[in-house]
Amino acid sequence: MLDVDNNDFSRVGGADMAAFSGPVVNIDHHGTNLRRADALLVDPSQPATAMMLVDVLDALNVPLTEALATPLLLGMITDTGSFQFSNTTPQTLRTAARLLEAGARLNWLNEQRLQNPPTYYTLLREVLNSMEFQHDGQVVLARVNEAMLERAGGNWEDVDPYVNMLRNAEGGKLAVLIKDFGDKVKFSLRSRGGVSAQNIAVALGGGGHVPAAGATVEAPYAEARELLDQAVIAELARAQTPPQPQE
Amino acid sequence: MLDVDNNDFSRVGGADMAAFSGPVVNIDHHGTNLRRADALLVDPSQPATAMMLVDVLDALNVPLTEALATPLLLGMITDTGSFQFSNTTPQTLRTAARLLEAGARLNWLNEQRLQNPPTYYTLLREVLNSMEFQHDGQVVLARVNEAMLERAGGNWEDVDPYVNMLRNAEGGKLAVLIKDFGDKVKFSLRSRGGVSAQNIAVALGGGGHVPAAGATVEAPYAEARELLDQAVIAELARAQTPPQPQE
Repeated sequence: MLDVDNNDFSRVGGADMAAFSGPVVNIDHHGTNLRRADALLVDPSQPATAMMLVDVLDALNVPLTEALATPLLLGMITDTGSFQFSNTTPQTLRTAARLLEAGARLNWLNEQRLQNPPTYYTLLREVLNSMEFQHDGQVVLARVNEAMLERAGGNWEDVDPYVNMLRNAEGGKLAVLIKDFGDKVKFSLRSRGGVSAQNIAVALGGGGHVPAAGATVEAPYAEARELLDQAVIAELARAQTPPQPQE
Repeated sequence: MLDVDNNDFSRVGGADMAAFSGPVVNIDHHGTNLRRADALLVDPSQPATAMMLVDVLDALNVPLTEALATPLLLGMITDTGSFQFSNTTPQTLRTAARLLEAGARLNWLNEQRLQNPPTYYTLLREVLNSMEFQHDGQVVLARVNEAMLERAGGNWEDVDPYVNMLRNAEGGKLAVLIKDFGDKVKFSLRSRGGVSAQNIAVALGGGGHVPAAGATVEAPYAEARELLDQAVIAELARAQTPPQPQE
């Protein structure tokens, strides 16, 4: 079995790997790779596993065809945010150039990727209607609850991507997307400009990275929100050390 | 004067060119270039003028520095939709790779580009609240009027970009953004999948290209909308020739 872009053999979707006893080849770029396959090619310095696959094809003298190049380009686009993330290297762009030359259908891929289902719009409307700007626009929040989700016809999993839209607010240093489940509340946090989403998440019993973190608080919204607001104020105070002029 | 990425000398922003009598060098990739400068380098086959500038710098043996590479990369990103448009060629990606090697600040550019002012959100909310799906989702419309604009705190120029968001609706073949000025109505049209925005625009007294066109109707909304709806039905009927199975 060839297991690609996956850090854990047992996580292969749609197949019961417990029943598989043959050899496993694992090609991956995740730093969290468990390194358990029979043959491993793991390089966390690579922006996309798709780039490693091109290297493997080159080493095997396999010519690039459109059928190979299009899915490989999709892998590269996905992992580099369409060449917008900081992991985009000169080599990323050169490999993408070779895939284009081999016939990769760049525009077709992007047309497919950018299709929004109707719930994208209805849920976006709910998120926007709940948006709040705090602390001179440094903090941007939005909340989704069961009633809003039902009105929009969406699922909880559909909600997560909107935190990036909140994150892109001009002057914003912290974006918080709040999933209000009724009996508990989940905060998704994104930060920049010296503010740590991680610090806030940790204060709320969660965790993550400095720019992207999360926490679940086992309390109704009003109570959980109070805890969030306190943690945000504490983190803004910390991040503004040395003190910055206040308007 | 070096006039770059501009098709008409007289359109140079922020300067009164009528008073300028010196030599003008024009480097541009627009097919509509008026070809009036003293020295011209015009190549409509190039995805971005920034790529032509790299060629000029190479011909002049000017080494690429970060100060040159970052604005050149911005030009390339802007004109190729961050390497997502169909004008992205292998050469586009290779030139971008060279700019990255010269220190171009790709991630910083994208961070700056993706900042949304507060009116982005308030206006998006208005657009979403007015969204309509017609003809089984093949047609997506949204309308902005003076009252909505005032509520959002935005200007008419802020409205135009939202047509692309409408255009990305799954199953959509025609997106219409309607600017309702009260005494007249402006339609911005985007189409795909065999439907011609141009045909609809022409039927309404406007014009443009097949995938992107526009028309202004000198009538109040209800009347103009009636004309639009008729033109849309006629174009859908035409585009569905040969007849397609109706649900």
